[in-house]
Amino acid sequence: MSREREFQAVARELGYDFNGELLKGGNYTPVVRHGGQVFVSGQVPRVGSQMVVTGRVGRDVTLAQAQLAARICVMRALALLRQSLGSLAPVSRILRVTVFVQAADGFTQLSEVADGASELLFRVLGEAGVHTRTSVGVLQLPKDAAVELDLIAAVD
Amino acid sequence: MSREREFQAVARELGYDFNGELLKGGNYTPVVRHGGQVFVSGQVPRVGSQMVVTGRVGRDVTLAQAQLAARICVMRALALLRQSLGSLAPVSRILRVTVFVQAADGFTQLSEVADGASELLFRVLGEAGVHTRTSVGVLQLPKDAAVELDLIAAVD
Amino acid sequence: MSREREFQAVARELGYDFNGELLKGGNYTPVVRHGGQVFVSGQVPRVGSQMVVTGRVGRDVTLAQAQLAARICVMRALALLRQSLGSLAPVSRILRVTVFVQAADGFTQLSEVADGASELLFRVLGEAGVHTRTSVGVLQLPKDAAVELDLIAAVD
Repeated sequence: MSREREFQAVARELGYDFNGELLKGGNYTPVVRHGGQVFVSGQVPRVGSQMVVTGRVGRDVTLAQAQLAARICVMRALALLRQSLGSLAPVSRILRVTVFVQAADGFTQLSEVADGASELLFRVLGEAGVHTRTSVGVLQLPKDAAVELDLIAAVD
Repeated sequence: MSREREFQAVARELGYDFNGELLKGGNYTPVVRHGGQVFVSGQVPRVGSQMVVTGRVGRDVTLAQAQLAARICVMRALALLRQSLGSLAPVSRILRVTVFVQAADGFTQLSEVADGASELLFRVLGEAGVHTRTSVGVLQLPKDAAVELDLIAAVD
Repeated sequence: MSREREFQAVARELGYDFNGELLKGGNYTPVVRHGGQVFVSGQVPRVGSQMVVTGRVGRDVTLAQAQLAARICVMRALALLRQSLGSLAPVSRILRVTVFVQAADGFTQLSEVADGASELLFRVLGEAGVHTRTSVGVLQLPKDAAVELDLIAAVD
């Protein structure tokens, strides 16, 4: 259960609890499984009802804060996979991660923001966490979130 | 044929005809099927040759108009699935919807815009219409469209 | 080997060598294969260590230069598929292409930029290169790239 241990270790380091009611319903849903693929909805850096990192990266938000935001987004995505699959064990690979950064005009360190997400996926999942990635800087994100991230995982 | 009935009911309510020649060719195509997945190209709120909702949401375009735009995008996507599959019956699930909003600086109600799309997918497809979703606010969309939306569907 | 011939012909016409070490490692990776799908990471118009087309399209970068950027992105994606699969022969279809353009405020010819990518995919891959597509204009791309593009391919 090394994945579970790393997941909990990261949660402790970040100081947030990712065991809340993440799987809320509605007309869309955080997770859909189809065949060997699991789609996870766009995650923002929210814990409970608190949006942790808001504002424009490169103006209101530093690179380090944006990387933290990316890590929280990943933890939410992992928490959703964990809830939905029972544990992280069935994840055989992260196939695709798309990272949207609410960027200031002229802020081009989008890959560097996304590195926060990529490093954490590798730490928790090992080789299964090595994914393809696209990083872009957008004008606005929901509720002024600094970062939003979605992913597709492969499961056994 | 409740899906067909709802599709036609929404078309009547919106006051647009979605039976036009949507499947135009070129070097790209509106729909590609592979295995159990159908990919639908990015749809803008165009009906026939008319782009119905243009401009920047939060400045030129209200939230309600943007939700209408999102609904038209979804109807186009459903019309393409319907044309391509013969009917909407083979759609077993909408896996992923990505909603791009041509946003004004400071407009953060991107999830609210996307709700227009999500509600309609649920209305027409029922549980099969409950999808994962990512909503972002971008600087510009093709032909000044207020909203663009793409999706991946699962088919039997 | 018509695909290989066209790939090399385009490389000569563009005047760039796409045989470099594209498959660098890290916590993310340029290509992941899962079942019949191959995901390719977001590609920018870089050749070797040189970012060929930077700046904002519609202000610093013309439509023609942005189309060149889109073609270089596609050539990089094809080069990655070729390296990863041994040749381009196993590619049975390009399923999805997403084109992000670093756009100037008011620049709406995003489909026209993406046409540079789509035409080249058709030229090299023929009917297998006819894909679904989404084109959006974003505020910033990594390292000030004018265009970024990712794709999903189907393989035999």
